[in-house]
Amino acid sequence: MELHNFFLMLAVLLLAARFLSEVAVRLGVPAVIGELAAGLIIGPSLLGWVAPDATLKILAEIGIILLLFEVGMDTDVFRLAKAGAKPVVVALGGFLLPFIFGFVAAYYGFDLSLLPSLFIGGTLTATSIGITVRVLSDLKRRSSDEAQIVIGAAVLDDILGVLALAFLYQFAVLGEVTLASVGQVALYIVLFMTLSPVAAKLISWVIDHFDRRSESPGLLLTMVVSLIMLFSYLAHLVGAPAIMGGFAAGIAMGQRFRITIAERLGVPFTPLLNRALAPSPELARRLEQQMRPLIHLYTPIFFVMVGVSLNLNAVDWTSALVWHISGALLLIALLGKWLAGFLIRENRLRQSAIGLSMIPRGEVGLIFAQLGLTNGILDAQQYAALLIVIIITTVLPPFALKWFYAKWGHRAELEPPIERDRDESSRE
Amino acid sequence: MELHNFFLMLAVLLLAARFLSEVAVRLGVPAVIGELAAGLIIGPSLLGWVAPDATLKILAEIGIILLLFEVGMDTDVFRLAKAGAKPVVVALGGFLLPFIFGFVAAYYGFDLSLLPSLFIGGTLTATSIGITVRVLSDLKRRSSDEAQIVIGAAVLDDILGVLALAFLYQFAVLGEVTLASVGQVALYIVLFMTLSPVAAKLISWVIDHFDRRSESPGLLLTMVVSLIMLFSYLAHLVGAPAIMGGFAAGIAMGQRFRITIAERLGVPFTPLLNRALAPSPELARRLEQQMRPLIHLYTPIFFVMVGVSLNLNAVDWTSALVWHISGALLLIALLGKWLAGFLIRENRLRQSAIGLSMIPRGEVGLIFAQLGLTNGILDAQQYAALLIVIIITTVLPPFALKWFYAKWGHRAELEPPIERDRDESSRE
Repeated sequence: MELHNFFLMLAVLLLAARFLSEVAVRLGVPAVIGELAAGLIIGPSLLGWVAPDATLKILAEIGIILLLFEVGMDTDVFRLAKAGAKPVVVALGGFLLPFIFGFVAAYYGFDLSLLPSLFIGGTLTATSIGITVRVLSDLKRRSSDEAQIVIGAAVLDDILGVLALAFLYQFAVLGEVTLASVGQVALYIVLFMTLSPVAAKLISWVIDHFDRRSESPGLLLTMVVSLIMLFSYLAHLVGAPAIMGGFAAGIAMGQRFRITIAERLGVPFTPLLNRALAPSPELARRLEQQMRPLIHLYTPIFFVMVGVSLNLNAVDWTSALVWHISGALLLIALLGKWLAGFLIRENRLRQSAIGLSMIPRGEVGLIFAQLGLTNGILDAQQYAALLIVIIITTVLPPFALKWFYAKWGHRAELEPPIERDRDESSRE
Repeated sequence: MELHNFFLMLAVLLLAARFLSEVAVRLGVPAVIGELAAGLIIGPSLLGWVAPDATLKILAEIGIILLLFEVGMDTDVFRLAKAGAKPVVVALGGFLLPFIFGFVAAYYGFDLSLLPSLFIGGTLTATSIGITVRVLSDLKRRSSDEAQIVIGAAVLDDILGVLALAFLYQFAVLGEVTLASVGQVALYIVLFMTLSPVAAKLISWVIDHFDRRSESPGLLLTMVVSLIMLFSYLAHLVGAPAIMGGFAAGIAMGQRFRITIAERLGVPFTPLLNRALAPSPELARRLEQQMRPLIHLYTPIFFVMVGVSLNLNAVDWTSALVWHISGALLLIALLGKWLAGFLIRENRLRQSAIGLSMIPRGEVGLIFAQLGLTNGILDAQQYAALLIVIIITTVLPPFALKWFYAKWGHRAELEPPIERDRDESSRE
């Protein structure tokens, strides 16, 4: 594409995103809905002004990686560890329930063949961590206890999703699956998620050291962005979603970074290491100040591009079968995630909030469905049915959560949101 | 290209840029030399790690546009107007001298045919405003009186260069040139450069108004970046270099924006309009704070990509003819710009500083040469000779200016640099 056309497209995208998110906020709707709507409007669904261009896709991906970096920075490893097995249970439940019921409905209910049924099940397992986190931010609930569980569960869900995709893809191509290879990928991912924050933390020291001594400005930002890009690359290399690189780097740069799990398990030298790795509030503050403009600029690109990717014209709206399949799958998609919230020991309200937060499929579900379509595993009708499910599960939860918190948010069971001001909050 | 490979390339690019610019500063060399060197090293000239990828080129272009925006914000329209005809004289002199002598040397001296000789002359006219501005920044001289003249002249030079390119290209394709069409483009550009800052200023009001009332963060930045992109697109549309859009938007957003020329010419209502357009120091400060991280991140991408584009392997280093041609052209390229500084009434030192600052050809010369090569107007030898000239004229001036200011910078003829702190500086 010509350079100047790209400039125009980027301007249109940013303006539409901002205009519609402002309108959304004034209507009492989460801002992310405005950005998704902007994508639907300027994308191929309606006006066709903005195409899913390669460079825009890269900028969108940088946007979600930077958002995950911010989430990582905000993540209190201590609180996450305190949540213990809860995120694991929510993630596994929210993965298995939609997968099994989705598969059963497709295979036995609609008599689809094995592979499409597996892909349909797989698509339903997805949770869009980006949309989930963004909605919680829009509602000023990102620091709540339930949000910690949701974020932990969404991260795990993303990893499970990648494993499932690798699994299904291998099965589709080779006709068989070696558990060893999937286990190997899982091991790599676990190693990456464990070691990379520590590595990033050590690197952040070096950066901090040089930033203090550098005469030319911008060292901190450039280095940290490089680090995030590098870790995203490494995450992909070990088979994890690239955004996990941003998340890992964010955790390391946050003010609350400690090797909590090792400490709990009594790994030798951990307290010593933790003292050495002690977070520098000053660095975190400077970093946040410099990263924020970048994050504000890039994240809307991601959400608009999700809207652009949801091509409403790809759906044959007149086919009754499509509506039947999508109706059944939608029910499974909504209930599967919502019920997963009730698998953990929490009060009812929090269970509901957690379950609702896990519903958005967003771009993650789309990747599954798209891969199924382009590989000839899903036909146009099946793809259309999934697309409807993805659109509704992406757009509905922001409204549902908004309503939910408006109605129940003041109740004691949902602790009032902690102000997102890291300077003030106690270290626990 | 695969997404994750892009992340790796971007990380390598940013790391190399930062590392080598830090090394350069420690060696007492302007930082931009480090970034150009990074491009030569990681680009196809040496390691070949980073290719001139389409997305990187777009990011680089955004980088130079943002840099020009910053330059525009720093530009004191009043001081620029006070400089009067000086930038015009420097630009015209620095355009005509290299063009005429370059053409004569190629056509009569080396017996080249008409079109290549014209393209060689055209290539020599270029001034890389990016490198010029960056070197003056690195030397902390960007607010000096001579820098104001240089920036004005470099902007005009860029516009003249685009006109010359349009002229030559038309001549090459059609075999004739209609002066009317070139005049039309010139008129459009003048209109754009006059009207767009006023338009941008009016838009910035609306942005400011909404930014104060918005509940979601990041409105100011997103809107201003959209505006810059939009104006870059418009600049291209009227036939001007895209970077002029960034410059025009920057002038409008700066703290010192006034419609000085109209005021001087006594255009009615100008004082009234100026009062209405009165700059908001608070807005400019907020904007600068938010734009700075973005500019620090993006501009190195531009300078590294200039280095990446300078493919040393494209030169046949053993050809004596190449060296003869490039030797002669180099002399013309250096003297032509340097002597242009002496066409204005200034003290000797300032004349020299201005002339030296105009020498870097950088990416602008490269565009000329590349276009000549890909259209079969220049052969490999002529291209190689020009490439040598571009490389040396790009790399030499930062050293020369550094040495020049170290030796003469304290003299009264070169006023001490005004601190780049807009809050402190008087409004004159």
